[in-house]
Formats: sequence, structure tokens, C-alpha cells
Amino acid sequence: MIISMRARASKEEVDYVCERIREFGFRVHSIEGEERVVIGVVGVGGDVTACLESLEATPGVEKAMRISAPYKFVSKEFRRERTVIRVGSAEIGGDDMVMMAGPCSVESEKQIMETAEAVKAAGAKILRGGAFKPRTSPYDFQGMAEEGLKLLAKAREATGMAIITEVMSDADVPLVAQYADILQIGARNMQNFSLLKSLGKCGRPVMLKRGLSATIKELLMSAEYVVAHGNQHVMLCERGIRTFETATRNTCDISAIPVLNELTHLPVILDPSHAAGKRSIVPALAKAGVAIGADGIIVEVHPCPEKAVSDGAQSLTIEGFQKMMKELKGYIELWKQERMAEMAVTA
Amino acid sequence: MIISMRARASKEEVDYVCERIREFGFRVHSIEGEERVVIGVVGVGGDVTACLESLEATPGVEKAMRISAPYKFVSKEFRRERTVIRVGSAEIGGDDMVMMAGPCSVESEKQIMETAEAVKAAGAKILRGGAFKPRTSPYDFQGMAEEGLKLLAKAREATGMAIITEVMSDADVPLVAQYADILQIGARNMQNFSLLKSLGKCGRPVMLKRGLSATIKELLMSAEYVVAHGNQHVMLCERGIRTFETATRNTCDISAIPVLNELTHLPVILDPSHAAGKRSIVPALAKAGVAIGADGIIVEVHPCPEKAVSDGAQSLTIEGFQKMMKELKGYIELWKQERMAEMAVTA
Amino acid sequence: MIISMRARASKEEVDYVCERIREFGFRVHSIEGEERVVIGVVGVGGDVTACLESLEATPGVEKAMRISAPYKFVSKEFRRERTVIRVGSAEIGGDDMVMMAGPCSVESEKQIMETAEAVKAAGAKILRGGAFKPRTSPYDFQGMAEEGLKLLAKAREATGMAIITEVMSDADVPLVAQYADILQIGARNMQNFSLLKSLGKCGRPVMLKRGLSATIKELLMSAEYVVAHGNQHVMLCERGIRTFETATRNTCDISAIPVLNELTHLPVILDPSHAAGKRSIVPALAKAGVAIGADGIIVEVHPCPEKAVSDGAQSLTIEGFQKMMKELKGYIELWKQERMAEMAVTA
Amino acid sequence: MIISMRARASKEEVDYVCERIREFGFRVHSIEGEERVVIGVVGVGGDVTACLESLEATPGVEKAMRISAPYKFVSKEFRRERTVIRVGSAEIGGDDMVMMAGPCSVESEKQIMETAEAVKAAGAKILRGGAFKPRTSPYDFQGMAEEGLKLLAKAREATGMAIITEVMSDADVPLVAQYADILQIGARNMQNFSLLKSLGKCGRPVMLKRGLSATIKELLMSAEYVVAHGNQHVMLCERGIRTFETATRNTCDISAIPVLNELTHLPVILDPSHAAGKRSIVPALAKAGVAIGADGIIVEVHPCPEKAVSDGAQSLTIEGFQKMMKELKGYIELWKQERMAEMAVTA
Repeated sequence: MIISMRARASKEEVDYVCERIREFGFRVHSIEGEERVVIGVVGVGGDVTACLESLEATPGVEKAMRISAPYKFVSKEFRRERTVIRVGSAEIGGDDMVMMAGPCSVESEKQIMETAEAVKAAGAKILRGGAFKPRTSPYDFQGMAEEGLKLLAKAREATGMAIITEVMSDADVPLVAQYADILQIGARNMQNFSLLKSLGKCGRPVMLKRGLSATIKELLMSAEYVVAHGNQHVMLCERGIRTFETATRNTCDISAIPVLNELTHLPVILDPSHAAGKRSIVPALAKAGVAIGADGIIVEVHPCPEKAVSDGAQSLTIEGFQKMMKELKGYIELWKQERMAEMAVTA
Repeated sequence: MIISMRARASKEEVDYVCERIREFGFRVHSIEGEERVVIGVVGVGGDVTACLESLEATPGVEKAMRISAPYKFVSKEFRRERTVIRVGSAEIGGDDMVMMAGPCSVESEKQIMETAEAVKAAGAKILRGGAFKPRTSPYDFQGMAEEGLKLLAKAREATGMAIITEVMSDADVPLVAQYADILQIGARNMQNFSLLKSLGKCGRPVMLKRGLSATIKELLMSAEYVVAHGNQHVMLCERGIRTFETATRNTCDISAIPVLNELTHLPVILDPSHAAGKRSIVPALAKAGVAIGADGIIVEVHPCPEKAVSDGAQSLTIEGFQKMMKELKGYIELWKQERMAEMAVTA
Repeated sequence: MIISMRARASKEEVDYVCERIREFGFRVHSIEGEERVVIGVVGVGGDVTACLESLEATPGVEKAMRISAPYKFVSKEFRRERTVIRVGSAEIGGDDMVMMAGPCSVESEKQIMETAEAVKAAGAKILRGGAFKPRTSPYDFQGMAEEGLKLLAKAREATGMAIITEVMSDADVPLVAQYADILQIGARNMQNFSLLKSLGKCGRPVMLKRGLSATIKELLMSAEYVVAHGNQHVMLCERGIRTFETATRNTCDISAIPVLNELTHLPVILDPSHAAGKRSIVPALAKAGVAIGADGIIVEVHPCPEKAVSDGAQSLTIEGFQKMMKELKGYIELWKQERMAEMAVTA
Repeated sequence: MIISMRARASKEEVDYVCERIREFGFRVHSIEGEERVVIGVVGVGGDVTACLESLEATPGVEKAMRISAPYKFVSKEFRRERTVIRVGSAEIGGDDMVMMAGPCSVESEKQIMETAEAVKAAGAKILRGGAFKPRTSPYDFQGMAEEGLKLLAKAREATGMAIITEVMSDADVPLVAQYADILQIGARNMQNFSLLKSLGKCGRPVMLKRGLSATIKELLMSAEYVVAHGNQHVMLCERGIRTFETATRNTCDISAIPVLNELTHLPVILDPSHAAGKRSIVPALAKAGVAIGADGIIVEVHPCPEKAVSDGAQSLTIEGFQKMMKELKGYIELWKQERMAEMAVTA
């Protein structure tokens, strides 16, 4: 921690700050500049956040800056090798680019079965589909709930694909965990801390989507919640952030992928469908995601997007998905070569 | 609804769109421009959102735009007079500028009692204090939970002030509603739809904080959730949005107050503490909030901010709060005159 | 400056960083934490920015943070009393809340004369009007150029009001300075450094508008350009920043006013017209601006907004301006009392 | 154009709006909904922007929406084949992925010659280097000006590479055009309309960088300025936009590339250096840029980044550039195959 005092801070103020730092169990290392005093806070064991917040509120302090990362278990310092999450036949975070595909919402047996078979045939290993739907309007379709989960389970049985589906409330975690292979936390719930805590003991891998205006650091802190409560199988998902640009539904922060790869050992998935908000640029974004080193891609696919109950505009048709998978082939090969080379170095 | 077709859309595409519109129960009014066809969708009774989403996903469509507001009960069209919420001795939305004050977190009996008495004496009618704390880090203080609620109830008994406190999960709503006079929904839970639904039957007024990157329309949609599920006593709170500016913790979107006053009959509260993130500019923001026509101000006050377990940097001291209340006096008088004049016109 | 080394930085890397710091003429103060080395850079006379940029690019360095402000002449450290700029009968930054009003564009003699007389009668001291118009589209009206400047000068002659008008290019500075009392730099030119430099010797006060996505610090740096090139008469203008919110044209960052008041001695003007983008909320924003302590307000007024060649939607009618001025009266009185009290303390 | 009237607009208001539309030379097509009147404006020849702005300011109007694009020459509707810009041995926009590389600033003959030879050998066809530098602070290095241009010309002579360099003011355009092969307009000048106009007759291709908070539509409007003033050789550059995320200097809006490819025939270049702000993630972003279909990549390279006078942290070393070029090889091959396939279809 570094504490920068105001230019006109008095000696008493500086002394009081030093005293407070010691009360929190840290050592003080103060530097007298020409203009102001800057204090280095050294040591382990103390409560860094509490000390930081306290000092920020103390008279004479201009700024208190944390140097160390506020997360621990999810950091690359804690674990240097990539976390690999095995789900069904997929190894997320390993030497396999994992494709997840399916409709935004589960709507009917016919719809989910048809989609599952088609996306499997085209190369997807994991089937997505929402049974609990977070909708901006109370008047919109809210999902088929448990009935939808049952249809997903049926599709798994028929195709052997693993299932990923969203859970919106801590109260629903046990139910969803009963059916799903991966629990998805939506962007609007990334900082639903009650929900995050309940995932610690759910016994299923979790995919945590980045909030609409969440920083990368906050995304990692939310993952830390899940891990700290007992569940190490967390993957992160970049799905676009909210900016002033309206040509796309969100702004795909593609840099988040290499930045996360520097900071954490957890797998990172790209969701080009929500980032784009329109079908026509989804395949291009998927290519960029593979090229930049994501561990997987999750896309929305619907047999008849214009009849979808939600997100039709950004859903690929089945033919669109097949075409995209063909276009991705060369990129996935390059991805594998790079991953292999990396593993050879690490080993 | 207005559907703008692509410049090169075929006749078949236009016809199919018209057919779909009729299937949704609307009438079609098409306009042939020099460049493209634009279709007006007229009628009531159909499902606007479903139709809109469907058309956005239909080939040949460039854009589908909603004209009518997506919310109903919270709109000024539905109800022209201001909603007044009576809590304890306060009338929120009436001819009273309501001050809410108190610590970020309830920390101890001494702390909450001392603060309650002081802020009451200075003019606050409602006591704030968190017992369930949404914290970015799993390692930070998470609140005193029910014990904190009991201390708040004690402070109410001692001072007669009404209590506002946050609830973070639908599972906790009954417990919090047992103690609190107003349930606060934090910015990070503004689109926790499970929580919003559970507030419909909680029997208490609700203060809904705007999400960090929520639009004004989304805030109104979240309020609509609560009202549509049975609870009309909702107040909205502007607490700053997230932008690129880092000189303040958030960017206080002060315009949201007059914009909301044009769109809704619900009361609007300003939270200058979270908007600013630093104590020194809180009083200036509070003045702006009164001048621009907020129905109330909610601020963080702590007897000793540098020992607060959370948000110390943005908490006013008790003296700071007293000073601010004195400075606000003239502004509150002007506010009352304007409110009275408005009521005279409406009556 | 504080240099935070990577957790695994080698001794050689640390030594090289220290050597570089000394080469730049600074002293080194290094702190060995449990996890990493942090280096304090102390001393004056060296080139802080160059040193900082160099270190950021040096192997082993994680982050290089500047502690001191990058601006000098515009800072409150350099000069504690407010800068007062006298223009015509107005004292901007003094004990006078200065109202500036007029059309977006000068369109005709009739239009500018009529507006000037009306806004003067209602209390404005400075007449605004654009002769060079920055327009997003090359096909839109680009302003009357010198002819517009002449009409402004005529309006000054007739009414005694001072004139503020925009200059868009360093090549036009001498011409505009010949006619105008204050040169306005538009938001899109806030970092047009060639233009900023040319203002140093223009002999006229300058109003610098904040860029659409400029930070407060960058706004101050742009002001520093003008002052460093020889012109101390700079006022700053908050006119809204660009965010995701679309209910208003821009988001009025009202907090910028008290933040600037803490950081600089330069006057700060609020432009509620561009911030709002729609007429109906301009008066509310103007009230907030007065209450929060701006030194002046600049608004767009047009005798017939729906026939304005630009910005009609956000222009007040003359009646609207008169009504707003009446509503502001009480707020301006409070403003004066506060300003007087402040001056009494400072004196 | 679509005009949506307020729900309570009077018949007189609607009639007046219709009259105004006809005055502007358009035809009226009005639709009476249950709630409000919506008016379609049809026809060509009238001044769309003027009409739109006027109606937005007219009583009774809620919103006026433009349907057609506000730009013409740069749109895909105007020209369906890609614009190919030939500069030296490069064909930008053709079947060649063009690499541009070089230092942020030209610093010395040795530096620019060494860099030029190295990046040419590694595969770059165009040499970048700044002689006029837009710097946030007046105290920072402002570039070598004409002397820098001369060194660039020398490097061109020695290596045969074409030169791209920034111009900051319309006054400097003739000078810079004398030396440079491509004139670069920096992000902060994207809406310096005086500068844009002066590029119309400069006789050189122009690379227009997207402003920090410019929308894609605004970028196209700025390009339209250059084309409308006589210069068709414009390429666009995505270099990151400003958001709340601070882990990177800017947020690389990678989706802008496919979006621009849908809207315009102009070539699109990606600048991963400014988008990232740190060297380590530049190669990953470059890969994404190639994969998503950019026409070229421009990166900063310096023989010794920690001694660079500017942007060292984001500059690749020469070895770093060589390594990146090797890694890009496979991606560039895929890019070529796709471009060839596209050309085969178009032909």
C-alpha cells in the first residue's frame, strides 16, 4: 500500500497516519519528498482493505493506493498452470477449443432437440439454453423454469452433450445444479454476492459472465467469491461491456482475454452473440476470439431466429452455425499449435 | 413500433414482415420511400416486445424501433400526480424535502445510537445503516446481519426515526421487512429480477438504486417489476453512474432527476455520497440535488469516518452533516416554494 | 513518483530501474515489501513525465504512478485566490453569477439583435453566438464566418453586451480575436494543441469547453497549454460528457464543478444546453449549476427554436429564458451570500 | 425520417408539423396509432438534417428519427467494391494485409534508420513515425517537426518504404504532404473540421483515427468530410475507445472492424498499440485484428522502448516485432484465402 499525503499535510497528520498503519499490523516506510510525504506500508497479515479504507478517510491523506492484487486464489501468482475444467467430453482450459451453442431460451422439446443435434454435428460439445431468463421487462417471457431444465436433460441424454444453463437466485441453485453440468451466472448477477456465495458448495462448475460495466478486476473478485466459498471450477466469460457505441449491443472488450490470461489461471470464454447483438458480425468476432486465445466460444443458435422468444436478432441459424464452424477450422488449428507449444514450454 | 427495412429488401421480405406483424395482432401501415420501405405497426393488445424481437431477427429488416414506453404503471401517462410515500413522520414525494442519513454499515450499538441522535437533531427523518453489505471482496466485512437489524430497530425506538436498510437476496426479504421501514435495493442488484419480484409482496416501501451502468429506462423497468408484482411504494435513487472519469467514485447523473420527473410519478432521491466517493464534495452535490428538484437526499454520516468499516472516505462527520444541513436551509426553502406552487397548479 | 516492480522482478531489474531514475536527476527511495519492491522517486528539477514514461517501458516494472499534479500554473497550489476575468461589465470568477446567452448560430441581423436585446433585458451580460460552426456533417450549415462576427459586433454596439464566439482553427484566431471579447474553444477542439498554443498570444480571454470524453485532469492540462503559452485568462466549461445514457444528449458531470474548484483557481462555467440536449430540462440544470457553485451559466436562446439552423431542440425561447431567469433569482441570491462569505474568509 | 408526436399532441401541433415537413420539400405520410400520431417523411432533395433539427425543436414532437444514413460517398450503398489505396509497394484494401510499423516519435537519424531497416526486414511495408506530436502536457516533447519529416524521407530513400506521419493543423498540411506518403489524423483531431477540410486537396491518402469517444457513425462522417472536399483516398483506423476499464489504456472496439466492413468501402486499419497501451498484449490484439478482417495493422516499434521519448510502454522491441510477425504468419495466410474467396465472389 502507498499513502500519498496532501501537499500541506501537517506533521501531526502524518504521525497519526503512521500510528494507524501500525495499529493495523503493518510497518511504516515514509518518504519525504520536496512537496509531500509518501508512506509505504509494508508487511503481511494485516487487513489491507480495512487499512486502506480507513486511511482514505483520514485527514491529511490525499490518496491511498493498493499495490498488491485484492484477489488471491484466482491469481496467476497463486497458481501458474491453467485450470482445466472437465465437463462431459470437453476439457475447458486444456488443449481443446470448446464450442458451446444453443438457443437463448429453451422453448419446446422440438426446438431444443433439433438444435442440440445440429450443433453437436457441427462440432459443439456443450449445449446452452436458458430455463430461467433475466428479462428487463416484467412482461416478457421469463423462461420455462424446471420444465426447461428437464428438456435440457433430455437433450443431454439424446446427444451426450453437457448442459450449461443460467441460475438467477441462490434459492434456485440446488434445483439447477440437479440438472445442469455448468451453472451460468449472468452479467446482471456478477455482483449478486448472495448468489456467488451459494455457488461455493453447488458441486458444479460455474461460468461467470462479466457485468455490463464491471472492470476486469471486479470480475476476478467475483470469481474469488466462488473459489473462497469452496468451488475452484470457475470459468470467466467476456460478453461485451456497455459504452456509448450503439452500432453493436455491447462493446466486445476483446483485450480482456489476454489481460485475464496474464492475471488468472481460470479459463476464459468469449460470448460473441451478446457482445454483438446482431447475427451478421458474430462469426467475425468468434474468429477474433479464437485468434486471441480464448478457451472457448459460446454462441446463440436457433432453428428459426425470427420465431425465437428472445435474442433472435443475435442468434445464428443452424446453417449459419455450420458455416461459422467451417470458417473457424483454420483458426482452431493455429490455436491448438500455440496451445501445444505453450504446454511444451510449461512442462 | 416502426420497422425500417433494408434499402435492398425484396418484396417478399416486406410481405413476410407484414404477415408476421398481423400474426402478432397488429395492423400494418407501410410507407414506400425512395430508398426503402418503412412500416408502421399500429394497434393495442398484441405483445409489443415479442413482435419487436421477432422482427429484428427477420431477414430484410434493418431496425425495429419501439415508440411507446415499455413500462406502464410507473409512467406519468398512467398517473399524473406524484406518488407520496408516508414513512414514519416523513412524506416522500410530498411537500417535504426528506433527509436520510446514517452510517454505511451498522457497526455497534454505540455507533448507531450516537449517529441516529445526532442526525435526527440536525434534521434527518430517516436513518440509514447497512446490516447486509454487498462487498466487492469476499474478505471484506459483510455486515452484522440480523444483529445489525436489531440495533437499527433499537435506534428507531429511541429516536422515532424510520429505518432504511439494504436487502441483498429474495431469501432475506421477510427478515429485513420485519425490521425495516424501507427496503433498499443496491445498485448491483437493480436487475436482480428474483429479488425485485419478491419485493412485490413485502409490505414495505422500496428504494431502488440505479445500477452502475443502468439507463434511466432500465431503472424504470426495474421499478415496474416491483409495482407489477404488487407494491406501488417505490422510490428511485440516483447514486452516480460509471464513466471514464476517475476524479470522483462515480459520475453523478444529476439530469436523471428532471428526466425522471418528466417520465414517472415516483419519488426520486439523490445519494451524493456514493456519487462523489469523497466527503469534500458531498455538500455541494446535495445542494444541487435540492435545487434540481429531488424529493430527498440520502447521505452517509459516521461519528468517526476513519474508523468506519466501510465507505469512510465518503462519510460526513457529524459536524460535517450539521454544517451541510445549515447550508441547505435556504435551498430547501426555495424547494418548498416551488413544490407548493406546483401543487397549487395541479390542484 | 512511485514505481511498483513486478512480484518476480530480479535484483538486476531493480538496480537498472534505480540507475535510470538517477540518470533523470531524481533520488531513489526503495522499499522492500514481502511480495515486491516499491521505489519512491524523490526530487525536483528532473523531467517527471519523461522519467515516468521511460520507467513504464522498462522490464520488471509493473506500474509507474505520478503523485504530483502534471499541471502547474492552473493549480490551486500555484495560486490560491480565484482568477477573476473582467469582460465588459462582467466579472467572471468574482462575486457575480455571470449569465451568457444567445443563439447557437448567428443567422441574421434580425435574429441576433432581437435575441441580444431580449437576453440583456432578462439579465444576461454576455452574448453568445456561433459564426464558425463545428458540424458533424460536411453537408450541414457551417456558419456565417466573418459576416457573422460583424453581426455580433453590431449587437455589442447596440446593447453593450460582451461577445463570446467559437474559433475552430489557429489560422482563424487573429480574425476572431478582432471581433470577440471571449474566444470559445469547442469540446471537439479541447485537445487541438495547435489551436491551444495559438491562444497564448491572442490577447483575449478564452473559454475552454471540456471534451466529450475528456477527464477533468485533461481539461486542466489543456488550460495549462494556454496559460503556459502566455494567456492567463482562461475559464473552463462543463458541457456534459459522453456516456451510455441516451435520455439526454450528454451526461452533465455536475461534480466536475466542485472538483475543479478544489483543483484550480480558474472560473468554471456550466453549459446546461449542450449537457441536456433538450430544452425542457435546461432550467433545472441551470439551478443545479448555480447551487453547486459555478461562476456562470451559458445557455442557448433563440427567438424561434424550430426555425433555428442548429441546436433548436435545446434552445430556450426568449420567454423560456425570461422564466428561467426569474426562477434562478433566489438561487443566485444564495450564491452571492456564499461567495461573499468565502471572500470574507479569504480576505 | 420518422416523427413521433407526443401522446397528448393536439391536432394543431400535428398539422403544423406536417406543414413544416412540406416546406422542407418532403411528403407527409401520417399514421394514427391508439396512443399517438407517427409521421413518415418521404422524398428526396430536401435538406434532411435541417428538417430533422427543426422538427425536434417543434412543440408536440417527441422524437425525430433519421432512417437513411447521414453519409453518402463513404457508404457501401454508394460503392460496393472495396476502395484500394496504393502507396509505395502496398495495396491497402486489396489482397495484401499491410503492416505499418515504426516508433511513436522520430527521435534521431540512427533511431529511425535502424527501426526502418528492421521492420522492413520483418515484413512491414509502411514506416510510421511522428514528427508533430499531440501531447497532453505542454511540457512534454512536441516532436522534431520538419527535421523529423526529413529523417523520415531519408529512411524512405534508404529502404523504399512508404511513410505515414501525423499532421495536427490545417496550416501544416502542405508541409507534411511534401514529405509523407500518408497523412495521419490523430484521434484527438478526428473532429477538427478545419483540418479535415484541408485534407481534401492535399494530394495524399489519409488515415483517419477514430476519436476516443467517437461513434462509428461519427468516424464515417469525418471521413465523408475528407471525401466531400475532394480526396477519396481515406482509410479508417480503430485505436481503442475510452471506457471505464483501466487495465488497458483504451478499450479496443474490435467489432468496429466488421461493422465498418458492412457500412463502408474504405479500408480499415487496427492500431493495437494505442488500444492496449502495454506491449505484452499487442501481439494478441494484432492476431485478433487479422482474424477479424482488418486491412492492415499499425504498431509502434522502438529499438529501445525504455529510452523512447513517448509511448515506450506500448512499443514493441525490434525482437518483439519480429516474433509477432512470425506468429501472425498463419493468420495472414487464412486472411488471404478469405480475401481471395471474397474477390472471386464479387468478380
